[in-house]
Amino acid sequence: MTTTFAGTTAIAGIGQTEFSKDSGRTEMRLAVEAISSALDDAGLEPADVDGMVTFTLDRNEEVEVARNLGIGDLTFFSRSAYGGGAACAVVQQAAMAVASGAATTVVAYRAFNERSWYRYGRVVERADLPTADVVQYSWLLPVGLATPASWVAMITQRYMHEYGATTDDFGRVTVVDRAHAATNPDAFFYQRPITLEDHQASRWIVEPLRLLDCCQESDGAVALVITSLERARDLRSTPAVIEAVAQGATTGQWPVMVHYYRDSITDLPEMGLIARQLYEQSGLTPADIGCAQLYDAFSSMVLVTLEEFGFCARGEAGAYVRDGTIELGGALPVNTNGGQLGEAYLHGLNGITEAVRQVRGTAVNQVPNADHVLATGGTGVPTSALILGRTS
Amino acid sequence: MTTTFAGTTAIAGIGQTEFSKDSGRTEMRLAVEAISSALDDAGLEPADVDGMVTFTLDRNEEVEVARNLGIGDLTFFSRSAYGGGAACAVVQQAAMAVASGAATTVVAYRAFNERSWYRYGRVVERADLPTADVVQYSWLLPVGLATPASWVAMITQRYMHEYGATTDDFGRVTVVDRAHAATNPDAFFYQRPITLEDHQASRWIVEPLRLLDCCQESDGAVALVITSLERARDLRSTPAVIEAVAQGATTGQWPVMVHYYRDSITDLPEMGLIARQLYEQSGLTPADIGCAQLYDAFSSMVLVTLEEFGFCARGEAGAYVRDGTIELGGALPVNTNGGQLGEAYLHGLNGITEAVRQVRGTAVNQVPNADHVLATGGTGVPTSALILGRTS
Repeated sequence: MTTTFAGTTAIAGIGQTEFSKDSGRTEMRLAVEAISSALDDAGLEPADVDGMVTFTLDRNEEVEVARNLGIGDLTFFSRSAYGGGAACAVVQQAAMAVASGAATTVVAYRAFNERSWYRYGRVVERADLPTADVVQYSWLLPVGLATPASWVAMITQRYMHEYGATTDDFGRVTVVDRAHAATNPDAFFYQRPITLEDHQASRWIVEPLRLLDCCQESDGAVALVITSLERARDLRSTPAVIEAVAQGATTGQWPVMVHYYRDSITDLPEMGLIARQLYEQSGLTPADIGCAQLYDAFSSMVLVTLEEFGFCARGEAGAYVRDGTIELGGALPVNTNGGQLGEAYLHGLNGITEAVRQVRGTAVNQVPNADHVLATGGTGVPTSALILGRTS
Repeated sequence: MTTTFAGTTAIAGIGQTEFSKDSGRTEMRLAVEAISSALDDAGLEPADVDGMVTFTLDRNEEVEVARNLGIGDLTFFSRSAYGGGAACAVVQQAAMAVASGAATTVVAYRAFNERSWYRYGRVVERADLPTADVVQYSWLLPVGLATPASWVAMITQRYMHEYGATTDDFGRVTVVDRAHAATNPDAFFYQRPITLEDHQASRWIVEPLRLLDCCQESDGAVALVITSLERARDLRSTPAVIEAVAQGATTGQWPVMVHYYRDSITDLPEMGLIARQLYEQSGLTPADIGCAQLYDAFSSMVLVTLEEFGFCARGEAGAYVRDGTIELGGALPVNTNGGQLGEAYLHGLNGITEAVRQVRGTAVNQVPNADHVLATGGTGVPTSALILGRTS
């Protein structure tokens, strides 16, 4: 698949607020702060922006954000659905707009008080018209599948049954994330690493997922500035080249984090579909990836993501992560900012800012050979991923 | 502005359900029927589809629609916000995806029971967290600006004051729409034309808007298939070339149908921004447009849209429509399917199917020289428009 955006567009600026459990201000203010910061990073003014893209779940309307910031006329604005599945999709949207000539400078953002105002981890309550989304929940809620953790627990249980993975394997993901968070001043869990024993001692949320397998709920905002690579070269910060970016949804996919009605429930075929596109767009292989920012709403899904991207064979991710492979200094450092388990839950957009920092060489936990960095979106939903690289 | 999608992509298939006040079935079923019909029209199978795009307001999740239809893997899916403002934006999204290589065959759809399940014309009720959308309503609702008709009425009143337009001028738009609907068997108001006297006798909704200035509330669905022009040439139906498609939002724009905080409230500057892009992308001028499908949620906004697209000077649209200009046989036939006042309110997507039929030469109210057909999205919101043309 040849695309017009892969290799020709770049992330030219990144911005974020502090990550907390109670921001103490509106989501609009968070959005405006993060975008201002991203524009500063790129050396651009609000008036330079002519495109905006965010998640369908974001409650900060593009034009309200624009008015508050002093952004002028817009010739591009769009939304991406499926929660964290949108993380890299918003970058694809922006890159497509730039590469196709619909806009020159696109801001992607996600801002929420996801901990202090509402909590996505809570039981779903839906009672409305018989729309497709409500009908779909009617298959899940009556049997107690009523929270993201419950949906993922069933898949995780089956993964353990089929491949002999243990909760220790999941715990190792969290331990690594928390180790990386411990040295990242931006992380909520800065200077608070955990051990595998801490993980095993944490309470069940939905067996076999423990508290420390489930990501944080966070307040905060993240923003990115996307423009052409050619223009990005002239801006303030080192460009992160969008070497590849793709979306994927597969046959029988459900809109929420379940995908039960298929032969196997232990894979993430939509991630596999995306992996194939990314490698084809970029000409890269798993061996080329210097580090990876993998969506870790739940630790067990990081293992399956590693398999779908070909870093190890099906069912072998548990063994793959046992010997320090995904730690700093390992073959594939993962979630070098601490991830959503360690830094903050920002619907995956903070994985992209970390990928940018790795490519720039400015990460607090810098990986030496981060020439190509993978970042992925939500798991179990229609989702997205990207590979960022260095300018040649 | 050079784009990669203008002139290289096409609408290859169109489909729709019947338009009613009570469809008697779910929105999902409406979506599936319209998309099936559009694929049939193009001579394609569900398995050929690899991209889907719809409105943020649509409650039929892409992947649920895909499963119900037998659509397989998707490599592109996105959403467009701002209600009817999305009408042509979904086409731009699809065209960008095709032109950039993210997908080959994209379905755009809008399906709702907007009359029988909920009614957008009702008073807005919002009481929630202090998110930007709620805060924004807090400026409107306390002074009685609580429905779309009320928001547009204030703009319309000022338009009359500034330019001497009369409610007769608005009524002429409805009379023309209803005349066109009267000969369109698909229209809800088939065989039910009205006179200007009927318009003037209809009750006030919000002065100066009468009942017959306000569009219908409708149940139904419309779908489009977008692919490359090259591929569309080999498919079953005559392609409608996407000669230009653009979005626009301007400084100070509000997300709902008001735009009061600016020097003048009698124009639609976002439409002007779009018009400039369309003429630039296509190299066309107003004189080249054979007919126009203009978003007519409210008749008065059709007048302002005519001005923004340069069919007449500012404030002169009332005079422009007085002598049959926008009727069949006039210089610029408008809403040849009856529009949303006459055919159905489908968030503008039925204006695009009518534009396709005009380009194909298969409209029930066919305009002889419809080489280039304009269609526009919602008014007063961040919006979109397009020009379709014939293959050379």
